[in-house]
Amino acid sequence: MLRSLKKLTLAGLLCLPLAASAQNQDSLHIRKIYDLALTQGQSYEQLRYLTSRIGARLSGSPQAAAAVEWARQEMDKMGLDRVYLQEVMVPHWVRGDKEYAAIVNSKITPTREVNVLALGGSVATPANGLTAEVVEVQSIDELKKLGKKKVQGKIVFFNRPFDQTHIITGHAYRGAVDQRSSGPSEAGKLGAVAVVVRSMASNTDDFPHTGGLRYADGAPRIPAVAISTKGADVLSKLLKEDDKLQFHLRMNPQWLPDVLSYNVIGEIKGSEKPDEIIVVGGHLDSWDIGEGAHDDGTGCVQSMEVLRLMRSMGYKPKRTIRAVMFMNEENGLRGGTKYAEVAKKQGEKHIAAIESDAGGFTPRGFGIATTTEATFQKALSWKDLLAPYGLHDIDRNGGGADIGPLKDDRVALIGFRPDSQRYFDIHHTANDTFDKVNRRELELGGASMAALVYLIDKYGL
Amino acid sequence: MLRSLKKLTLAGLLCLPLAASAQNQDSLHIRKIYDLALTQGQSYEQLRYLTSRIGARLSGSPQAAAAVEWARQEMDKMGLDRVYLQEVMVPHWVRGDKEYAAIVNSKITPTREVNVLALGGSVATPANGLTAEVVEVQSIDELKKLGKKKVQGKIVFFNRPFDQTHIITGHAYRGAVDQRSSGPSEAGKLGAVAVVVRSMASNTDDFPHTGGLRYADGAPRIPAVAISTKGADVLSKLLKEDDKLQFHLRMNPQWLPDVLSYNVIGEIKGSEKPDEIIVVGGHLDSWDIGEGAHDDGTGCVQSMEVLRLMRSMGYKPKRTIRAVMFMNEENGLRGGTKYAEVAKKQGEKHIAAIESDAGGFTPRGFGIATTTEATFQKALSWKDLLAPYGLHDIDRNGGGADIGPLKDDRVALIGFRPDSQRYFDIHHTANDTFDKVNRRELELGGASMAALVYLIDKYGL
Repeated sequence: MLRSLKKLTLAGLLCLPLAASAQNQDSLHIRKIYDLALTQGQSYEQLRYLTSRIGARLSGSPQAAAAVEWARQEMDKMGLDRVYLQEVMVPHWVRGDKEYAAIVNSKITPTREVNVLALGGSVATPANGLTAEVVEVQSIDELKKLGKKKVQGKIVFFNRPFDQTHIITGHAYRGAVDQRSSGPSEAGKLGAVAVVVRSMASNTDDFPHTGGLRYADGAPRIPAVAISTKGADVLSKLLKEDDKLQFHLRMNPQWLPDVLSYNVIGEIKGSEKPDEIIVVGGHLDSWDIGEGAHDDGTGCVQSMEVLRLMRSMGYKPKRTIRAVMFMNEENGLRGGTKYAEVAKKQGEKHIAAIESDAGGFTPRGFGIATTTEATFQKALSWKDLLAPYGLHDIDRNGGGADIGPLKDDRVALIGFRPDSQRYFDIHHTANDTFDKVNRRELELGGASMAALVYLIDKYGL
Repeated sequence: MLRSLKKLTLAGLLCLPLAASAQNQDSLHIRKIYDLALTQGQSYEQLRYLTSRIGARLSGSPQAAAAVEWARQEMDKMGLDRVYLQEVMVPHWVRGDKEYAAIVNSKITPTREVNVLALGGSVATPANGLTAEVVEVQSIDELKKLGKKKVQGKIVFFNRPFDQTHIITGHAYRGAVDQRSSGPSEAGKLGAVAVVVRSMASNTDDFPHTGGLRYADGAPRIPAVAISTKGADVLSKLLKEDDKLQFHLRMNPQWLPDVLSYNVIGEIKGSEKPDEIIVVGGHLDSWDIGEGAHDDGTGCVQSMEVLRLMRSMGYKPKRTIRAVMFMNEENGLRGGTKYAEVAKKQGEKHIAAIESDAGGFTPRGFGIATTTEATFQKALSWKDLLAPYGLHDIDRNGGGADIGPLKDDRVALIGFRPDSQRYFDIHHTANDTFDKVNRRELELGGASMAALVYLIDKYGL
């Protein structure tokens, strides 16, 4: 395939008109990006270090500090024009060491331990835990209909499953996640004593999936945990047989004072339009379990790889290309917010920001959020250049959490779109580890981002 | 996404002209296929049984017999119009119990064991093994240039790696596999005593990848093994430092008499054109290591799922739909050959055959081999119906080993095309096990095949 493509392109350079010839140059350049990434890519070995030697790295943790220093050193080695840290104060929540949950006082089962994980940001239970009856609901609406009388003093169990019929699993996640983010406060308002949430997962297993919750202002703050999908099925089944069974929950997470941390930024200065900035980024922090491999070690190493590929091809971009490793995406978004604040204050002009935060799986395309139709059409015009690499999904569903705060009329916010089937098997679990990442899939992702950056740099957006 | 699609389609049914309305009916029908597969699909649990309870199942083995009986019973349960076994005599090669290889008599290393696997069909070494110097080559051409003088009495080490720059890994496999299939005979002709082949692998690890060899008529038959990619790198490095080092190889595989086995066939009779047959198939046999999960348990359960989905939707096909689980794809192709022979003898008219034998990964499209341009264009006209499910790669590179013998001017030979990045990490290794298969990816594959069968059945091809 490679050989015939090269032949075609050489013929093109000799006898086709200018536009076609430019396209053939682009096609050759992009082919070279992929060749390099697939044969000499370094993201996989970088990710091995980040996940295996540093590991889980929640904001404020010593490991998050190690990740900052590691990312700085990795980019320092690359001979970029500038590598710097951007200060940002981050929240510091710790899980504690007493996470325990069990079904107790049931007529039909002896005490039965179940796997749970405190939701990020949850308050603790009393030191000896709490024990209460359980009320199961499928949604916040259903909870509200039950009302205070039926909820008061109970543990609310949100058990709406992931909708498996979505082809893109992120859509299923979005359809389930309100139970985790808003459920605890809504239950608290009705007098519940705790919340148990079914994991937002595409598979059935024993791993609970954690994730952030948002306590609403003024609502009582009650402890909240995620239960594994298998655990949720068991609990639901037992409740049908014995609706007076009780659930015991004990945990001691706590909030500590904010910690000084950093976004880590590397930059190649533009040769013609240095004031126009293209960002590629991922987030350096992860949850405190597993290794933060697909979420989002992969996005970090892919972003660095974009700069490394440019350097190693001797490519001098017209515009300024920045890799940003954001801090605190998981439980605060302080890094993304700070980056946009500083950019605004300094009057920086971002023309595009590409975020990789959906796992290091086989590339399928890009979502491109822009207020300008011409911008989207320009991106669409590159489809033929990207399709040979499996990048068929070019649509308007762009954006990303960390680049979101950059939003204005001039910048295209672009989400890198890898295949989504496996992501929510491991997302926010102890199972998000290096061995779940495939080398070729990861390197293809970095190459895909590099190819898009090349086109945006050359033609603007 | 689902909801908006449904709305769109309902609107379409009410006010669009006939062609568009038919397309919307198709779109609804296909959506229902995927919904069912993703929520009630049975392939994953079927595959768990085949891989975990039956396991590796080389032709002629007791496990192959178990797989035949299992497939027959599975299809029997489905209430098909006909389930039957098609007799086929298969070769029976066994690996033996003495596979051992080591680098010996080297100036720079003490005896160092390396992981190898006899190639399927290889003859044995003498009972005490053989020991010889090693000559490393990158290709059969290079071997021929060395000539008898430099090869005689030696072990030939084919070490051309997988070309990582291919985006579709199957292309890299095809570019490397001649070393394994023809290398042993070419080396034998020049007086070599054995062959060691670098594994056709996309990753670097300690697992050797086996696979079939073809002894040429009249050429000396010498023992041949695959060495893991890590092992090959070590051997190559040591050879550079000490080109007189010796390699010891000991193994006792053998050929036993042919065994009676079966293709397993299930069928739903066509309501309007029962004489026109559409086949979906995979192969039931596997190599004798690992569990034959992606190669090709997945193809078997997906093929059965196509029929099951039709049944469970109450869909009555116009044409006859057959799921065929072929026997002996790996080391003889006797099942595929027999199936085509019988079809020809009975004057059966096959209009399309779809083979799934590239792993149970996320679907990306179909390769459609046909002698008729109109047939290909018809398939291409369905692109918009398939694209929402990630099926963008519709091209002419169709076919498959088992359906190959069906080739004539009337039948379209179609290869199901899953994502290829992970396949050659585990292909033909002890690592091809159930845990490498993702439930959603697998079920999406069966649904994709069912969607294509639906369109071919409805519109012909």
